[in-house]
Amino acid sequence: MNASSTDVLARLSATIAARKEGDPNSSYTAKLFAKGEDAALKKVGEEAAEFIMAAKDAGHGGDVDKLVGEAADVWFHMLVALARHNVGAVEVAAELARREGLSGLEEKAARP
Amino acid sequence: MNASSTDVLARLSATIAARKEGDPNSSYTAKLFAKGEDAALKKVGEEAAEFIMAAKDAGHGGDVDKLVGEAADVWFHMLVALARHNVGAVEVAAELARREGLSGLEEKAARP
Amino acid sequence: MNASSTDVLARLSATIAARKEGDPNSSYTAKLFAKGEDAALKKVGEEAAEFIMAAKDAGHGGDVDKLVGEAADVWFHMLVALARHNVGAVEVAAELARREGLSGLEEKAARP
Amino acid sequence: MNASSTDVLARLSATIAARKEGDPNSSYTAKLFAKGEDAALKKVGEEAAEFIMAAKDAGHGGDVDKLVGEAADVWFHMLVALARHNVGAVEVAAELARREGLSGLEEKAARP
Repeated sequence: MNASSTDVLARLSATIAARKEGDPNSSYTAKLFAKGEDAALKKVGEEAAEFIMAAKDAGHGGDVDKLVGEAADVWFHMLVALARHNVGAVEVAAELARREGLSGLEEKAARP
Repeated sequence: MNASSTDVLARLSATIAARKEGDPNSSYTAKLFAKGEDAALKKVGEEAAEFIMAAKDAGHGGDVDKLVGEAADVWFHMLVALARHNVGAVEVAAELARREGLSGLEEKAARP
Repeated sequence: MNASSTDVLARLSATIAARKEGDPNSSYTAKLFAKGEDAALKKVGEEAAEFIMAAKDAGHGGDVDKLVGEAADVWFHMLVALARHNVGAVEVAAELARREGLSGLEEKAARP
Repeated sequence: MNASSTDVLARLSATIAARKEGDPNSSYTAKLFAKGEDAALKKVGEEAAEFIMAAKDAGHGGDVDKLVGEAADVWFHMLVALARHNVGAVEVAAELARREGLSGLEEKAARP
């Protein structure tokens, strides 16, 4: 049985959280935490730009795997930014599930 | 995947994909697809900016729930952009799981 | 004689600053100020995404005028965000001129 | 346009354009061109995120000089992206001047 996608994200969130106080030389994640909040957020901006570019490229016949890889980069760095505030994929998935009950155009209006 | 699945992200991706050819007046998602790829990507840019602002605010004592809500907005609009290219949360989670096997600083170098 | 590009930006900055306390119904700019800082910054994120998309499109044979229009949108909303902190195009141009004295790869290292 | 021009932005655009075919080892700008369009656009995304963060920090008592420096970074990298399509600050300023003739809320509607 494969792990669910949401479980993968939740597990990754937990792994990221565990590296918050880690030795900056021990992992990329620990290094990112050590650099301070702005370092992760700056990467979110950079990776979001790369995701947008990869989507445009995919629309012009480019590689969809690259698009998936950029999405993974954005999500990873967002999880690092969220971990700093003691939240992660579990909370984001719960919020998405909450909205899922709402449908259509009303869903948008219901966002906090 | 059935409606009772606990895999929120995979289920949301499937729901989004099902709305690709839907009546633009039937849901926010169908409307977004009807507007073309740039509409979803523009929202990714806007929501990424809001996520970054909410993280900065949280760092200054602001509301973490707002940060989670902005993260949900970014992920949702990214899933719409991914659905256009017939991929979604399952592929992003698989890519993150693949990287998870790798550790530390090497992980970064292994990205495609 | 045409006004210089930098003068146009400086004049636009002054016009924007003058609208800070204006009636929100009197202009788009006054309305943006009235909505608070995040409104302008959110637009910066959205317009930066549109600039990136227009550049990708231009690289695939798309319209360069659209790219210029998106650049104007980004600069305009950045000037609104700067005006809130009592700075504008004059200060940005001065900073760019300062860096211009420095050359090549050293320039980057000299950034504050 | 000569070196003594007071039109900083137009002069910077011209300097950037002149580095398009330069030796990548000769300057940061030539290196950026050599890396391809995505390199400059990725920096636009990263620097836009840094601008947004600096604006939020300035709103919490942070340094306005830092905000100006981040604005300069965004404009510089946008000028590099524009130069690739043979346009620059002159065209962006002309577009802003054109819009300036229009006022208030109508201005927004008139955007191309």
